[in-house]
Amino acid sequence: MIYIPREEFEAYEHVYKINMINSCSGYKSANLIGTKSESGIENVAVFSSVTHIGSDPALLGFFCRPTTVARNTYDNIKATGVYTINHIHHGILEDAHHTSASYDGSISEFDKTQLVSEYKNDFQAPFVKTAPLQLAMEFLVEYPIKENGTILVIGKIKGVYVKADLLEADGFINLTEGHVAAINGLDAYAVALSNKRFGYQRPK
Amino acid sequence: MIYIPREEFEAYEHVYKINMINSCSGYKSANLIGTKSESGIENVAVFSSVTHIGSDPALLGFFCRPTTVARNTYDNIKATGVYTINHIHHGILEDAHHTSASYDGSISEFDKTQLVSEYKNDFQAPFVKTAPLQLAMEFLVEYPIKENGTILVIGKIKGVYVKADLLEADGFINLTEGHVAAINGLDAYAVALSNKRFGYQRPK
Repeated sequence: MIYIPREEFEAYEHVYKINMINSCSGYKSANLIGTKSESGIENVAVFSSVTHIGSDPALLGFFCRPTTVARNTYDNIKATGVYTINHIHHGILEDAHHTSASYDGSISEFDKTQLVSEYKNDFQAPFVKTAPLQLAMEFLVEYPIKENGTILVIGKIKGVYVKADLLEADGFINLTEGHVAAINGLDAYAVALSNKRFGYQRPK
Repeated sequence: MIYIPREEFEAYEHVYKINMINSCSGYKSANLIGTKSESGIENVAVFSSVTHIGSDPALLGFFCRPTTVARNTYDNIKATGVYTINHIHHGILEDAHHTSASYDGSISEFDKTQLVSEYKNDFQAPFVKTAPLQLAMEFLVEYPIKENGTILVIGKIKGVYVKADLLEADGFINLTEGHVAAINGLDAYAVALSNKRFGYQRPK
């Protein structure tokens, strides 16, 4: 194995360093966050940091650096209080990743890609059509991470839309059946073809 | 698609609800966190919430509910200031998942599974042998999440051990080459066989 101590990787060239460090957490969730500005402009952006925080209440968090491309998403969430989380699947990988390009807030990524927005049950934020799992989210709270200027944004799940064939008898949602992607590093997408469940574990 | 509003899923039976809500974030990282207590007892536990927070400084976070099985991990990190993050790969799925069983702090999961600890470069916490990527971590800060009693634990990467054939020319670490797993829900592990990189995106 190669050993790279901190003193060494901190001195790496920028792109090499962010490629490497962004791979270190393991696979990351692959989601499109949909929002709408107060003036009605739709926004959709890829996020790889959506993380389960709790089931009761059902809370998801993601990390946001409001000075970068994520700014539109963050501003819209703060202005409207709502957003959607949509799972990226094998059919939309390229368009989903393209939403990471730095468009300003007057341009909708829905107009620059083949991604299609849809509205359901009077929810104000746009969902991404064809995503096998779509979540209606309400902003709950934010925690500024002082150590690097990011913000942990926590939302409460208001509603779950899931393709019927993904939802199994015990509540498990089979992401593999939905051809859902996982993100590796900054720009790689992997779609697993199978999974294995091991059940609840008790001490031997 | 099936629509499940909050009022409905909040009333679900406990196991059905946690299976469903734990699948909602998308694929999760699959890691073993290794620690050692002040009295020298090794601990290793599976976590699915390790998330990239920043590259410079290189920060990773995870969510911890200190009243559950994760308590040993949290206590050891707070007592010693160090831990390891080890990627779960296809060869250790079953043993890795078994570490979720509720052993008390006097018992090491290394003794209850085929997982093997290893020590390198005088780092106090145990690494998990055969993991294709191993991180030496230093505790940095914690943020208590008031909304549900969890704790966001943030650490700084002190060193990266990576199998040589996973590290590509631009710093990208190919998790697929390492047969690294991703977690779906509470107990399913998926190992992707391929991935596709799309590169840095600029506006069209």
